[in-house]
Formats: sequence, C-alpha cells, structure tokens
Amino acid sequence: MGSGVDGDADLLAQARELGRAIAEQDWVLLSGGRDAGIMHASAQGASEAGGLVIGVLPGADSRESSDFLDIQILTGLGDARNAINVLSSDVVVALRGGAGTLSEIALALCAGRTVVALGRNDADTFAGMGTVIPTSTVDEAIAAVRAALARKG
Amino acid sequence: MGSGVDGDADLLAQARELGRAIAEQDWVLLSGGRDAGIMHASAQGASEAGGLVIGVLPGADSRESSDFLDIQILTGLGDARNAINVLSSDVVVALRGGAGTLSEIALALCAGRTVVALGRNDADTFAGMGTVIPTSTVDEAIAAVRAALARKG
Amino acid sequence: MGSGVDGDADLLAQARELGRAIAEQDWVLLSGGRDAGIMHASAQGASEAGGLVIGVLPGADSRESSDFLDIQILTGLGDARNAINVLSSDVVVALRGGAGTLSEIALALCAGRTVVALGRNDADTFAGMGTVIPTSTVDEAIAAVRAALARKG
Amino acid sequence: MGSGVDGDADLLAQARELGRAIAEQDWVLLSGGRDAGIMHASAQGASEAGGLVIGVLPGADSRESSDFLDIQILTGLGDARNAINVLSSDVVVALRGGAGTLSEIALALCAGRTVVALGRNDADTFAGMGTVIPTSTVDEAIAAVRAALARKG
Repeated sequence: MGSGVDGDADLLAQARELGRAIAEQDWVLLSGGRDAGIMHASAQGASEAGGLVIGVLPGADSRESSDFLDIQILTGLGDARNAINVLSSDVVVALRGGAGTLSEIALALCAGRTVVALGRNDADTFAGMGTVIPTSTVDEAIAAVRAALARKG
Repeated sequence: MGSGVDGDADLLAQARELGRAIAEQDWVLLSGGRDAGIMHASAQGASEAGGLVIGVLPGADSRESSDFLDIQILTGLGDARNAINVLSSDVVVALRGGAGTLSEIALALCAGRTVVALGRNDADTFAGMGTVIPTSTVDEAIAAVRAALARKG
Repeated sequence: MGSGVDGDADLLAQARELGRAIAEQDWVLLSGGRDAGIMHASAQGASEAGGLVIGVLPGADSRESSDFLDIQILTGLGDARNAINVLSSDVVVALRGGAGTLSEIALALCAGRTVVALGRNDADTFAGMGTVIPTSTVDEAIAAVRAALARKG
Repeated sequence: MGSGVDGDADLLAQARELGRAIAEQDWVLLSGGRDAGIMHASAQGASEAGGLVIGVLPGADSRESSDFLDIQILTGLGDARNAINVLSSDVVVALRGGAGTLSEIALALCAGRTVVALGRNDADTFAGMGTVIPTSTVDEAIAAVRAALARKG
C-alpha cells in the first residue's frame, strides 16, 4: 500500500523493486490496483518478475486499472474497499503515501495484520495499536514479511 | 453462482463439470468461495483441471473458504459482497440456488453483465431487466459464455 | 423498495400514498434515497405526513438525493448498498421495479426479513426462499407490515 | 468518532458532554453506534438533550447497538462501514481512540471532510492530507464544527 500519485520518482522505483522482490519470493502481490503511484509501480515490478498480481479496485469498471494486473476485483465501493485490501492480505507493506495509505495501515491493525512500514517514519502514531515494523530498504521489508508469515504459521 | 448448500448431488456434479470446463477454456473461475454447494464443487472442478480459482468471501477470515481456492478475497461484507462478485466477472453463470443466487443474478443485470442461466427455468422473472440466456447443459453454457465474451470484445 | 425510474404515474402515486401511510403509522421510512421513482415519491408522501425519512444512497455525495430526506446516509458503495437497506429495515415493502428491486427482495430474504409485495405478481419466484406476502393495496400492505412487526415482537 | 472501549472515565464524560452539546445545536449525531466507549457515551449525551442519534453499525444485527440510538443503520460490513460514517457526516469530530478512530480520520480526509480533533495531539500525522483542527474542550470543538459548517455553506 502507498501513494496513489506519481510525483516521487525514488518512491516509484522503490515500489517497483518491492513488487519484483515479492514476485521473486513466489508471493502474490495484492494492491489497490489503480494505474497510478505505488499500485502501478509495484504491479509492474511483480509482473516483470513473473508474479501474480491482483488489484482490488475502488471503481465499478476497469478504466482506472493498472495494465499490470492479472486479476481485477472491481468493488465499486470507493475507499471502503481499503478494508478488503487489508483483510485479503497476509501481511501489509506500507510505503509512503497520504490519507488513503494511512487508512489502510489503521484498518490493517484493526484486522490484526502485521504492517511492514517501508521508508515511513511514523511508527509512533501506531503505538499500542498493533504490530508495525519499521524498515528502510526492500531487503529489510522482505525479511520482515517473511518473519511475519513464519509467525502466522 | 448457485446454491450454497450441499443437498443436490446432480447439481453439485454439474457444478464440478462446469468448473472443469471453465478451466479448460483457460478462463478464471470466480465464485463466492465458500466450502459448500456450487462454490466448492465448481472450485474443485476448476482446480482439478489446473485452472485459477478465486473466491470472494463474505467473511473476514478464511474459516469458510473452500480448499480449492488459489486466491481468497476476504471482504468481511456479508451478502454485500455479492455485488463485488458480479462486477468482477466478465460473464455470470447462474446455476440453481436460493435467494443469494437470485440476488446475484439481479445485481449482475444491474451491472449490465450477461447472465448465462444453467438449468434454471425462471427466465421470465428477468424479462426487460437485461440479458439472461437459458441453457441446459454445461456445453451450452460454455458456448453462451464464449459468445458473450466475443460480444464484449 | 421499487422502481428507480419515473415512467409510471400510477406506480408513483401509489408510492406516495404508501409513504404517507407509513408516516401516519409513526414508522420511519427508509429507502434508497435517490430523487427518482419510488424512492422520491414515497419520501415525498412520508415527508408531507410529517414522518422521518432516511435515504441510504449509492453515491458518495448528495447530488442524487431526494429533497424529501431528513437523513442522508451516503455510502459510496453503489448497488452493494442494497444489502444495507434491507438489513436496516424491520420489514421490506417492495413495489414494482426492475433488477435493483429484485436484488433487494432477494437480499431481504437472505437476511430473514419479511417482504411485503405491493402490486407485484412474482411470489412464485421466491417460493422456498422466505416470507413474501402479496398485497394489492396500500391498506393491505400496511396491515401486512403491522402483522410482521407484531410477529417480530 | 473515538475509542470503542470503556476504560477512560474522563474521555467518556467528555464524549457525553460533546453529545449533549451537539444536540443542543440541533445537529444530528452520527456515530458507529455500538454500546461501548465514545459511541455509547456521546449517544447518551445527545439523547438526554433530546437530539436525534444515528448509529452506523458494523454488524448485521442490533446486538451491539447502543440503547440511545434513534436510528440503527445495520451495515453488516465490519470496519468497511467506517467509510460510510465519514461520508455521511458533514464534519467529523475525533476524540482519542485506537486504530479504528485513526482509520476514520484518514478516511474523512480522503473524502474531503474537515476533522475536528478533540483532545488528540497527533495533528502532525495528518500534515498535507487535509484539514484537521486541534481543539481541547467541547466548547472549542463545537465552535470549530460551526465554523466548518459555515464554510461548507
């Protein structure tokens, strides 16, 4: 999960690298599915590495879908779909983003999901709400996801 | 889409055959994902034929999930998830079922989706609401889906 | 619940009469809330009789809202909001309508709600799915709602 | 919006005072509707002052409903209902709370709603995401809501 805007080239490059690394682990990448920001860049990375990519979209049609999705779940729910994204994820990786990303972190904690925060410095915001693991590189994030999956069993 | 109960062996056998035929067409099977009735039987058939199977589940956890799903979308929305099932489907195949199946046919027509009715005799109910194609065998249903997909382009 | 289009003057007059009768019983009227069809006409009737009127809207803003609502619940969920309409109603009265109305009847039966069908002749469609009470006048519908409420206790 | 647990007596007293003040302004109080924490206390205050109180509940039945609701909207959506709460509110007042409250603030900002933060000290978290007005007393919060409503016109 992360920003839905395209402004920050470093952030997009990191998202693409993360998507690639997720696919290389043989994990499925699930995101908000739009053709913008983190969603699109991570989908591109995962797709290039041969991974399976699912988008859970806010709209009722595919106009906003990233070209790199294998599966489109069209919810028509607007931002209420954020709750589905986190429920459907075993572990949530949150990159930098805005209010939508923040809502996903909060909803993930409501749902008892481990959140791996990549390049975010707001761990204090979530004190006492659940598990948020700060990381600063894709490698660290992948390691944190793997550890969280192992704990889930 | 179809019954979520396990009572009718002929119906379940037909659902399994349908799942198998969908996979053989290299189509993705999306259903309500529970481990009961049509959902489970069609997922089993598609899985046995090597297809990709997605379940869009009503619950917030995987307790009710069919073992034959490749992808679980956990919505936590209850029956409101029926709207997502039909939006996320290119064509909806409806077998015999109860009120839940009826709601999915109705929501599919609201969303402009073609409904292929397999072994149902209630086409009159939907007169003027959209396209419902009555079929009586899996082969006919597959042919009707193929034609609907071709019309969508 | 009923048609969201304005074509049938007799149907709209009946919806307005129904809204008025609901308010005269001191019941709250809840509908889909749009400024069209049954929703608007019943809201007008209830409002004219001094009743409380709630609209559970598909959109995320109030552009489509009937002017006769006291309370707008903006869901942003599209047709998935139909599930909320019926869960939030003690009894569902269904007038003539299209696929949306049919989905609401089906979802109401899924949720165990009694459906009072006013001027509809499709009771056979719902055989074995739950309680659908056919009525042909507003007075009969009000009596059927009252009886259903008494059974709920 | 605020905590759904009952541990902090000062917080509950403030929520009750806020509910009372909202009703005294002739505003409608809308909350998550459960019989716990801020939801229950604010509903009690508003009800005691003769206000109209709406609860948008996560569940599909009324078991968790506060006794002080005039209107129950039963969504059956779980935490996805948080998106409805904020869309249906003209202004959102957020007291102290956990991850659920944080998700509501974030979703409110996604939806362009002004958030009046009462007794929270996390305004920095929302920098650049929209309008969050920090206040420390009920009187200040009411004044901030009035100003926000005036700006909406």
